[in-house]
Amino acid sequence: MDAIPNILAQRYASAAIRDIWSPSGKIRLEREYWIAVMKAQVDLGMSIPAEAIKAYEAALDDIDLAAIDRRERITRHDVKARIEAFNEKAGAEHIHKGMTSRDLTENVEQLQLYRSVRILFLKSLAVLKAFSVKADEYKDVVLTARTHNVAAQPTTVGKRIAMFGEDLMRATRKLGALLEDYPARGLKGAVGTQLDLLTLFDGDVEKVSQLESRVLKHLGLPGQLFTVGQVYPRSLDFEVISLFNLVASGPSSFARTLRLMAGHELGSEGFSKGQVGSSAMPHKMNARSCERINGFATILKGYLSMVQGLMGDQWNEGDVSCSVVRRVALPDACFALDGLLETTLTVLTQMEVYPAVIDRENAYYFPFLSTTTLLMEAVKAGTGREQAHEAIKENAVATVADLRAGKISANNLAERLAADSRLGLSKEQIDGVISSAEKLSGKASAQVDAFARTVTALLKDYPEAGAYEPEPIL
Amino acid sequence: MDAIPNILAQRYASAAIRDIWSPSGKIRLEREYWIAVMKAQVDLGMSIPAEAIKAYEAALDDIDLAAIDRRERITRHDVKARIEAFNEKAGAEHIHKGMTSRDLTENVEQLQLYRSVRILFLKSLAVLKAFSVKADEYKDVVLTARTHNVAAQPTTVGKRIAMFGEDLMRATRKLGALLEDYPARGLKGAVGTQLDLLTLFDGDVEKVSQLESRVLKHLGLPGQLFTVGQVYPRSLDFEVISLFNLVASGPSSFARTLRLMAGHELGSEGFSKGQVGSSAMPHKMNARSCERINGFATILKGYLSMVQGLMGDQWNEGDVSCSVVRRVALPDACFALDGLLETTLTVLTQMEVYPAVIDRENAYYFPFLSTTTLLMEAVKAGTGREQAHEAIKENAVATVADLRAGKISANNLAERLAADSRLGLSKEQIDGVISSAEKLSGKASAQVDAFARTVTALLKDYPEAGAYEPEPIL
Amino acid sequence: MDAIPNILAQRYASAAIRDIWSPSGKIRLEREYWIAVMKAQVDLGMSIPAEAIKAYEAALDDIDLAAIDRRERITRHDVKARIEAFNEKAGAEHIHKGMTSRDLTENVEQLQLYRSVRILFLKSLAVLKAFSVKADEYKDVVLTARTHNVAAQPTTVGKRIAMFGEDLMRATRKLGALLEDYPARGLKGAVGTQLDLLTLFDGDVEKVSQLESRVLKHLGLPGQLFTVGQVYPRSLDFEVISLFNLVASGPSSFARTLRLMAGHELGSEGFSKGQVGSSAMPHKMNARSCERINGFATILKGYLSMVQGLMGDQWNEGDVSCSVVRRVALPDACFALDGLLETTLTVLTQMEVYPAVIDRENAYYFPFLSTTTLLMEAVKAGTGREQAHEAIKENAVATVADLRAGKISANNLAERLAADSRLGLSKEQIDGVISSAEKLSGKASAQVDAFARTVTALLKDYPEAGAYEPEPIL
Amino acid sequence: MDAIPNILAQRYASAAIRDIWSPSGKIRLEREYWIAVMKAQVDLGMSIPAEAIKAYEAALDDIDLAAIDRRERITRHDVKARIEAFNEKAGAEHIHKGMTSRDLTENVEQLQLYRSVRILFLKSLAVLKAFSVKADEYKDVVLTARTHNVAAQPTTVGKRIAMFGEDLMRATRKLGALLEDYPARGLKGAVGTQLDLLTLFDGDVEKVSQLESRVLKHLGLPGQLFTVGQVYPRSLDFEVISLFNLVASGPSSFARTLRLMAGHELGSEGFSKGQVGSSAMPHKMNARSCERINGFATILKGYLSMVQGLMGDQWNEGDVSCSVVRRVALPDACFALDGLLETTLTVLTQMEVYPAVIDRENAYYFPFLSTTTLLMEAVKAGTGREQAHEAIKENAVATVADLRAGKISANNLAERLAADSRLGLSKEQIDGVISSAEKLSGKASAQVDAFARTVTALLKDYPEAGAYEPEPIL
Repeated sequence: MDAIPNILAQRYASAAIRDIWSPSGKIRLEREYWIAVMKAQVDLGMSIPAEAIKAYEAALDDIDLAAIDRRERITRHDVKARIEAFNEKAGAEHIHKGMTSRDLTENVEQLQLYRSVRILFLKSLAVLKAFSVKADEYKDVVLTARTHNVAAQPTTVGKRIAMFGEDLMRATRKLGALLEDYPARGLKGAVGTQLDLLTLFDGDVEKVSQLESRVLKHLGLPGQLFTVGQVYPRSLDFEVISLFNLVASGPSSFARTLRLMAGHELGSEGFSKGQVGSSAMPHKMNARSCERINGFATILKGYLSMVQGLMGDQWNEGDVSCSVVRRVALPDACFALDGLLETTLTVLTQMEVYPAVIDRENAYYFPFLSTTTLLMEAVKAGTGREQAHEAIKENAVATVADLRAGKISANNLAERLAADSRLGLSKEQIDGVISSAEKLSGKASAQVDAFARTVTALLKDYPEAGAYEPEPIL
Repeated sequence: MDAIPNILAQRYASAAIRDIWSPSGKIRLEREYWIAVMKAQVDLGMSIPAEAIKAYEAALDDIDLAAIDRRERITRHDVKARIEAFNEKAGAEHIHKGMTSRDLTENVEQLQLYRSVRILFLKSLAVLKAFSVKADEYKDVVLTARTHNVAAQPTTVGKRIAMFGEDLMRATRKLGALLEDYPARGLKGAVGTQLDLLTLFDGDVEKVSQLESRVLKHLGLPGQLFTVGQVYPRSLDFEVISLFNLVASGPSSFARTLRLMAGHELGSEGFSKGQVGSSAMPHKMNARSCERINGFATILKGYLSMVQGLMGDQWNEGDVSCSVVRRVALPDACFALDGLLETTLTVLTQMEVYPAVIDRENAYYFPFLSTTTLLMEAVKAGTGREQAHEAIKENAVATVADLRAGKISANNLAERLAADSRLGLSKEQIDGVISSAEKLSGKASAQVDAFARTVTALLKDYPEAGAYEPEPIL
Repeated sequence: MDAIPNILAQRYASAAIRDIWSPSGKIRLEREYWIAVMKAQVDLGMSIPAEAIKAYEAALDDIDLAAIDRRERITRHDVKARIEAFNEKAGAEHIHKGMTSRDLTENVEQLQLYRSVRILFLKSLAVLKAFSVKADEYKDVVLTARTHNVAAQPTTVGKRIAMFGEDLMRATRKLGALLEDYPARGLKGAVGTQLDLLTLFDGDVEKVSQLESRVLKHLGLPGQLFTVGQVYPRSLDFEVISLFNLVASGPSSFARTLRLMAGHELGSEGFSKGQVGSSAMPHKMNARSCERINGFATILKGYLSMVQGLMGDQWNEGDVSCSVVRRVALPDACFALDGLLETTLTVLTQMEVYPAVIDRENAYYFPFLSTTTLLMEAVKAGTGREQAHEAIKENAVATVADLRAGKISANNLAERLAADSRLGLSKEQIDGVISSAEKLSGKASAQVDAFARTVTALLKDYPEAGAYEPEPIL
Repeated sequence: MDAIPNILAQRYASAAIRDIWSPSGKIRLEREYWIAVMKAQVDLGMSIPAEAIKAYEAALDDIDLAAIDRRERITRHDVKARIEAFNEKAGAEHIHKGMTSRDLTENVEQLQLYRSVRILFLKSLAVLKAFSVKADEYKDVVLTARTHNVAAQPTTVGKRIAMFGEDLMRATRKLGALLEDYPARGLKGAVGTQLDLLTLFDGDVEKVSQLESRVLKHLGLPGQLFTVGQVYPRSLDFEVISLFNLVASGPSSFARTLRLMAGHELGSEGFSKGQVGSSAMPHKMNARSCERINGFATILKGYLSMVQGLMGDQWNEGDVSCSVVRRVALPDACFALDGLLETTLTVLTQMEVYPAVIDRENAYYFPFLSTTTLLMEAVKAGTGREQAHEAIKENAVATVADLRAGKISANNLAERLAADSRLGLSKEQIDGVISSAEKLSGKASAQVDAFARTVTALLKDYPEAGAYEPEPIL
């Protein structure tokens, strides 16, 4: 039987993330970690032969997954299997001294997560920039904004895009903040008291502290925990996956809205070069990548539910009821968010907007959206407010009724009002008001500028993020 | 970089379930389905050369996953890639006539799910039987039942086990009922109106009906839907995964309680043959398999969250925002429940109970649990109720206080009460009452018998379920 | 400070459901239950004075919530407070004999839930009928069906409505099935062994069985559990709320789609009589009730999450970590589903469809949707397939491009094709094909008929459901 | 029928939180807000009579909920009903100028949430201090730490408490950080472009900015959003409730562990003064408040699911599908977390620890936990490592077997080892090692000190938090 691949990793995630979570990728991280521990132990006076360390270093990439798997099926202890495998390759038995399994796995898994967060943070920045570029491109394309999915007031396409970008901006910042304060569990021993390390160093508290510091420095995580048990609090996993969900929010609302716009042919997610749409049904530019973005967001909610189930459920100093859950939820949440960001970046790059269709829609709705202004103009021109209001209301209601009944096919409210002597405005005056509705997008354009400036400032220190190009998506 | 495997499938699920969801397993199901459609089409008058069908049948297992993958990366259309691949292998172009992608994928995915449910149903029955066997084995081992995790009244170990079994029993029945009424989407065309099939058969409604009937018969699902759109309602996926969660409930509560019992050394999940526990810490029989069962239950909640996110979110006749979610949640939920059931079966087979430790606990608590009876006996013997109550209360409170203060290490309430003239009962009388607390497990044993009878009746038609043995677990 | 009301109950739920869950409503159910237990006890030989029972019956409705609350704040035991209050009102102390708190609360809460399910089942049937009535009304109104929110093939408005109705139909049946097999916990005592009742009846097993049977008959639940602990398995609560979520699916997808249709002015949820829309913006018929339906569905997912958190988490014979959760989730889920069904019924009654707008949309899309047929006709007329295909494709692509570029404002593909000599079809022939696209709704209308027949059959035994009218909604 | 109260608010939440969310409390906030807007408008040149503003101020607390409710049932528009009611009371019509409903409701709801967060932050600090006090009290009480719920290595009770405190500490900091950067939506108009305000001020961008600034200053929120639509991104609600869940983590794990400890009688949650436990079963100190804490945590997960359902689901510039969800989830999540913190504070204040029972447990397990040290001592004393290991292993296994078989009731491993000549250690030597296991709690005590110092530093600026006493709980 063929092996069943991790569909999120293999189908949607980028190579950089896959590399971190691949079986051999993880084992490499563990081995580097063991070597770092040994070197620190030597520095602090423990006698481990230099050639042994060299042998371990030489064996770093000599990873035989199948052999490790066979070992585990005998010992039923995954860490022990990996210790033995590394020892065998190096021909020595010096790793893992004074350590318990969790001293290895907790820290290495945190490292995997942290490195993933770093990639995802940079990719979020890249998406932010793409939002900003598109918002700028369309900042003055006036569009009929909708509330309750119904025409409401003018806005611009760019403002609409920036609106979703601002959602992502806050989330990206939070992700960036996490990179500054994410705490490692550290070398704390079986129940968190560092007993075994203290024993190893004959009770020398100072040496144990130094050992932990050096190892943490190797990991490169920005913070550390102090009074954990066997495990770090699972609220930390929840915090990370919760941020992933936050990051998904803006792209997801954007994708949902682009699906709506595609339904009106106001825009589309475009096609990748070379991709062939349905040739006989060229109008059918399905927003399938946008749909997928929404799908990823739904998936992320599921992984949040999983880590949520672990949080606040620690028994005493900890156990492994979290193990199988974290094996699934942590990598797969990283793959899902990575896929979401890659897809969003692609959509933002390829999306199209159809100003002519937008104009047609505006033409249809602007007469209605202009009624307030028309009322003011009529009053200015000397018509009584109540009389003007009555005239507008009657004609507007009749226009909608006729449009819906098929009596007319274009909005002729302007003609009706011009013909209604109660209002006292000429066709020219009325047309003038309606055509200037275009200008009624308020601060939309200025808001896009402000958004773009903030994005630029945010990306200043991350030029690589601004230059990032997504991998081709399926 | 090595491929990232589906951890649930590869590490925890059994071969039977993996087979259904493996890439090639799915493609085989699709190919069988296409052939069934062609044969039905021929029966109904369409001309497809017999040798072409034979060529398809010959190519059934000639599946080149990598080649299909390459095709998809060009067309960006997974079904089209698989059509072309099959056509190429058969040297013909007759499959998929009058069909839209969903006519293939919806039905085949339902088939995968249905076959998985059948396996999981039988496995649930196997677990039920294991509950029954263990409950019977310990049906008369009197145990101090706990509410609020504190000693309450006597029960028996067997009754406790049957209690969790009854939870699973209802869920298993529901799963069995699903096997009787799960409805296929059927061949409904792009928007559910069967337009393309009608066109194919020149508007012959009867032929279209017959075609669908034959194809559904091939699938073997027990029901069908009638007025779907492009997709079947995603509430159906929710219904299935929701039942999976129900099935997980009894095993999960059982596992949680066995973890609690292990903490008191009243029992343990045992070891598999050959497995070596910590030799120097032989008391440390970690309930890691039980912890894993709880982990699987948490995972299942996450997959429910995913399909929950799809339910009630159908836009018009449907779209593919569900696609990536279902690619993950449907197979992975099957793997997780399969792993849970395999593990539960293993634990039920290997678990141990320590009657001597149970007796020690009973001896500690039964004097307290007997106070109501002692009061009645004292009153019968002529002591005033209030006076007796006062004497019992004072001595009980003092005993607890002394135990907690370390003044005494065994419960000596009996001695105290015998020495308290207010109560008017001799040491022998008091001991008699306390020792008969053993008998105060009420209908516990009878309940186990009733449970066992129901399980036996339920398994009568499924001898293979009763005989099932779990695969070795990690 | 003013009291904070339960917003779901007070703002959205109907009186019938509120009545079941109101504080005094619950206390009344408890008192009826205690009286039923006493009467059964008397029947089985226990001596309880007839006048005491009469006194309890007389005090049934003499419920002083504030006084009970004050008692509880002293005893910190809610059941005890309610026992004392009832005893005081009746001037007797005969209730609750041989019972533990859970013998009262589990069963009465199940009764509340069961009665709510009955109401919600009937209301689901009423909604089903409303789906059927509307589907029938519009069964022949041809509409451009959409997949990916983009025009795909013709269907009818009625078929679209029936599609969501079929989703609800399965869920309603499941709810009805629950009414046939929902099991009561029964009188099982503190740890499920019926010890206290056995003591009360001097170990007479038969009498205890009879007592439980009589009390269950009073409750009127259709099934019973046999080997529970202090509590019934919380999977049972999950099962119920999970069905509530299933019931919400069809209405929720319907509401979501009606919001989409309102965006195209194909239909609207209408207004209640007397309700005034925005007079100057008469086009703005916001689908706020539909939005609320989607909101209720989201809420129900939250309550499912809560009871999900309890399932599979039973420690030993049970505890009260579920208490606060069930106090919130059980009633509030009933209120939310009730509100959802009331709102759906209102929307289905008031909704409007605008055939003229639908026709305009059809006219826009049918030329594209007819290309397959045009190709066949051209081939029939002697044109080479490849040449015809090329001609159609080029003209279709150009038409879409010109529409999006604003060069044309109506779909003129017919004219283009007529003018393209490669195709070899006249304008009349082409128009003939396109105008007959109207007939291409396949089995849509027939499917509506079949749906309606099933609904009628389902409602036959529940005339009250068919006649139900919703309460006015906010 | 009696009204149905919000059970979380009325039964568990404190007055301060209830006050913010009560119907009249909210209306008061809205009225203050309208007045602030009017005053800013006057400052910026709009003419609103001073006496009108005074009249509004005079009417601030003249809130007739029933009358407002009646209005809403007619208009079916809640904001309009409240506008009219306030106008009527003030005898003027100057509020809400240039505003849309969401300019009112979004900001006021954010204010309610923000003020709740402030209260909950201070209460989290109070709980942190209570953790610190208890940790300090028991920092040297050596306890057998458990992993997999089974004895592992020594720790101290104080360290265990500090461990859960550290979980809460990070969450509390995050909550505090939110108080520094929570952004208000501001006055943005119907689709976020500030069109109506610009119209009101004749297009004067500067005045509109100043108006918004003044109003935001009135609200007192620390940040603001810039490019929103009609609504602020619902990810912001998710962020808040997600933090609430984080805060619940430490208390929830603590409560779960105290329930476990109560099962071993190592400690209990104590009783409130005056509360009477079961007098005849004085051992039965149920951890019902701890169970409730776990219940609250489960509830919070449900409310997170609700707001999660809103996030990433914005259609265009927004709609009200979130309305009913937020009416439920936002206040109820505040009530639930408030109840959780009040309960945790109570438990931490009243909890008891039983050192004598802890000692008995230590005595039982320390011989096993000392085997590693015994091995080292034997080797030091000249015994061969393999021989010593064999002797220890055999005797340890036999001891466990005999304890479980009931052959012995106390751990006599020391005697066995002394009698086994292979080991070469005297009874005195062995006892020495075992008795010094007490000292093997590593850095537990020092970790508590470090934790306490951090808590003290954190509370320095919030003396009111340190002094907070919880309300009496049910």
